[in-house]
This record gives sequence, C-alpha cells and structure tokens, in this order.
Amino acid sequence: MPAFSLSDDLEFAGRLADAARAAILPYFRAEAGLENKLGETGFDPVTLADRASEAAMRSLISAERPDDGILGEEFPPVDSRNGRLWTLDPIDGTRGFIAGFPTWTVLIALDDGPDSILGMIDQPYIGERFTGSVSGAVHSRSGLPDRIPAVSGVTRLDGAILASTDPYLFEGAEAEAFARLRAAARLTRFGHDAYAYACLASGQIDLVVESGLQPFDVRALIPVVTAAGGVLTNWRGGPAGDGGQVVAAATPELHATALDMLASAAR
Amino acid sequence: MPAFSLSDDLEFAGRLADAARAAILPYFRAEAGLENKLGETGFDPVTLADRASEAAMRSLISAERPDDGILGEEFPPVDSRNGRLWTLDPIDGTRGFIAGFPTWTVLIALDDGPDSILGMIDQPYIGERFTGSVSGAVHSRSGLPDRIPAVSGVTRLDGAILASTDPYLFEGAEAEAFARLRAAARLTRFGHDAYAYACLASGQIDLVVESGLQPFDVRALIPVVTAAGGVLTNWRGGPAGDGGQVVAAATPELHATALDMLASAAR
Repeated sequence: MPAFSLSDDLEFAGRLADAARAAILPYFRAEAGLENKLGETGFDPVTLADRASEAAMRSLISAERPDDGILGEEFPPVDSRNGRLWTLDPIDGTRGFIAGFPTWTVLIALDDGPDSILGMIDQPYIGERFTGSVSGAVHSRSGLPDRIPAVSGVTRLDGAILASTDPYLFEGAEAEAFARLRAAARLTRFGHDAYAYACLASGQIDLVVESGLQPFDVRALIPVVTAAGGVLTNWRGGPAGDGGQVVAAATPELHATALDMLASAAR
Repeated sequence: MPAFSLSDDLEFAGRLADAARAAILPYFRAEAGLENKLGETGFDPVTLADRASEAAMRSLISAERPDDGILGEEFPPVDSRNGRLWTLDPIDGTRGFIAGFPTWTVLIALDDGPDSILGMIDQPYIGERFTGSVSGAVHSRSGLPDRIPAVSGVTRLDGAILASTDPYLFEGAEAEAFARLRAAARLTRFGHDAYAYACLASGQIDLVVESGLQPFDVRALIPVVTAAGGVLTNWRGGPAGDGGQVVAAATPELHATALDMLASAAR
C-alpha cells in the first residue's frame, strides 16, 4: 500500500472539504427535503445536503484511499485495513443550517492508529477553513492570504468569553455546573456549534463547554485547537475523541479552572 | 434643498454601508481597544470599530446630506432640518463581534417623516447585504447575482423556527412567556442578533422574539422584514420603531399566535 505524507493528507483533506462544499451549497437557504431521523422521539433534522456531503467525501476516500476506514454520521462505518481512519461530520450544526445561519461546518479528522494526524473545520458559505496538524494551524479564506491562528492568553474565568451551542443541552447537575461557569465568565455566547472552536483557535473565544457530543462532532476539533495552542479534553481532563462532555480552553490555567467548576457533573 | 429619489437614497445607503465595512474589518478578529461603557453597572463592549464605523457614516451624511438628521448609538443626535432621519447602528451584535462570530451587522435606516423609506442589514465579513424599501427586498452577496428574499409560509408555531439573541435577556414574566413560546416552537436558535431578522426575511427563520431593543437596533429591520412579506411589531402589536419588546413573524397567523402567547408580559 502507498505511504502518504502529512502534506499528501492535508491536500487530500482539502479536496474532501471542497467536495463537501460543492455538494452542500446548492441546498443552503433553499428548500431542502428534511427528514426526522428520530421519529417521535425528538428533533434531529437531516437534510439532503448532509447526505450529499458525506457521500461526496466517501466517494473520494473509496477511490483514492481504499484501505482507510471511515466513520461518518450518515452511513455505516467502513473498517480500516491500515490503521488509518477518517471521521466525517458532513454538516455540523444542522439546526443552524436550516435556520439559515452561516456558522454550520464540515468536520474532517484523520487518525493514524492512536494519533490524530489532522483536523479540519470548513465553513463553505463564508468560504473559510481552519486546519490543524503537527505542522501547525492554518486559517484560510477564499481569495485572502492564509493566517496562522493562535489562542488567546486568557487565564482567568472572569476575563473569559465562554461559548456553548445551546443552554438547554445541559440537564440536572450539568446544567447547575454550567450555570456557575456562565455566572463567573466575562461573557457567554450561544448558537455556533463547532464554529466556536474555530473562534477559540483564532484567539476570540476563550472557553467552549458542551455535552452530548458524538465522536464525529469532536475529533476534527482536537488538532485545530491543539495546533493553535489550546487544550481540549473531556470534563474529567481525559481524551475527548469519543465525544460526550467536552471542554476546550485557550490556556492550561483556564482549562484547570473550568475542570474544577465542572467536576461535580463530570462523568 | 435637493430632492432625493428612492433610488438615490438606496445608492447612498449602500455607500454608507461600504464606508462602515471598510472602517470595521481591520478590527474584526484583531486586538481591539475595548471599553466598558457601563462601568460597574454591566457589560457592554464598545470597540474602536464601533466608533470608526459610525464616524465614517456620519461623515458621509454630513458631507452629502447636510439637512438630514442622524440618530446613532455612539455619538449625539443631529437634528433633522428636512424631516428625514438616518438611524445607524454601527455594529449590532458587539458581543458576537468580540467573540469572533461573523453574524454581527451594520444597521442603516432612513425615515422621512413618519414613514420608513428603507432599511439595510449589512454583514461585512461575509460580504452580504439585505435591503428593504417600498421597491422591495434584495439580498446581495459580493460577486454573486442579487436575490429577492421572501419570508416562509409557516403559520403554525409547532412548525416554526424561533430565534432570539440570548435566553437570559428575558426576566420575570417575559422569561415565562418566552419559555412557553420556546416549548411550543419546532426549534429555537440563539446568538445571532439582527442577522436573525435577515434569515427571517430569507424564509429560513419563521419567528424572532426579543426585548430591550433600542431604536437603532430595530428601525433598519422593519423595512427589510416588511418588504420580504413579514410582520414586525412590538409585543402589543403596535409600531416597533422605538425598540423595546419586538416580535417579527413570517405570516400574520404566526404573528397573532406569538402575540397571544406574549400578551401577559407585553408592556
């Protein structure tokens, strides 16, 4: 089997994101055939765009990286024959997508065995992409020069901008812990899904706290946040690649403070 | 004094938005000198960008429309000598702006006597602009053909996407009324300030409910929502141009349902 360099992988991930972008944009702010994946049990919109996006990425992987595994939101997993695994979220933030807000994203992660090689957060409508790998973090924007994003130096919670997707995602002890955090933070913003982690990598947001994430919601974020100098773990301080309760912070100090305040609800 | 046609006014408003855009973008996601306008009483970030934006627009109005009045967020009002009044919000959504989210906007409204002539919602980073006037609604995007936005046909609350800037803006009876509305809506999204009204005009969001707005937060929204076929009033169903409690809906039916559910908290 061919060996791929990190540079090959970054280039290929970029083409995956390009393919997802082309598949999705015709559906954004258009009438999309929505389905209700959860039937009577809840609300989880899946658009034609979601499936078209993942199918486009899977098709490229099957053609050019047939031995790599695939874990995606919309279709069954493909086993890896070489230890490499692509984790795909074809549209992160589908609720924001159907509301017309432009901060949904396409998430792409590549793991090689236990190591995350790269992560990519792409926003097709705005035309911007955040990439993280061992070679660093990059923020690219259509038609503009690349920028090197870096997290803020904020260490204290009372100076921190906190973000989370939805205040009503938290229940019970989680809701109480988040309320304490929100009361102590400088400012809290809601509603931007994975895009908030890109803003953390860019030095704008200082802290993101969420719960109930799936592996495909979080794997792409870890290399982006880490390469920009931040910390991303679960609420107990361990690896967050399997999803669940996630906390991302600009500095180790702020991360430690957040873990302290979330400890009573950490699973 | 010269008479201006609607076409003149639309062209001039576009130049105001262009000037605001040029003034703001160097500060977005850069270190901006934040001040705390409210001192110990609360948190209301004002960036250098906010002032630069309003100063740029005021400068054009003074030069080319010296008899028009100005009401803006950052500087004292200028009296109108001809009955015409520009209402400017140099950055709506300053909290989102400092968090790095790209859905803050520049808001521009022109009233002639009691009539709103035009409203404009501009998002400089994305490069998109929503305009409403008696000649209709327009959504323009840098480098793309103009589109004619139109509200959705959603009449029932259980089929409606509801938006509001922040769930914690509501207190007491308002919070209770909003909670009832949220529980009955199909889906609720937070965090996008005036941009949510542009998404309503585009047929994506069906209902926006807010409180505590200033005149400069709302005047530009009314012509955009109305020209796209929607309804925007205060919570009692009266004119919303003075701010306060605001409700915007895609259809008269949905508007009536929302007013019913908000009535107990309407001032």
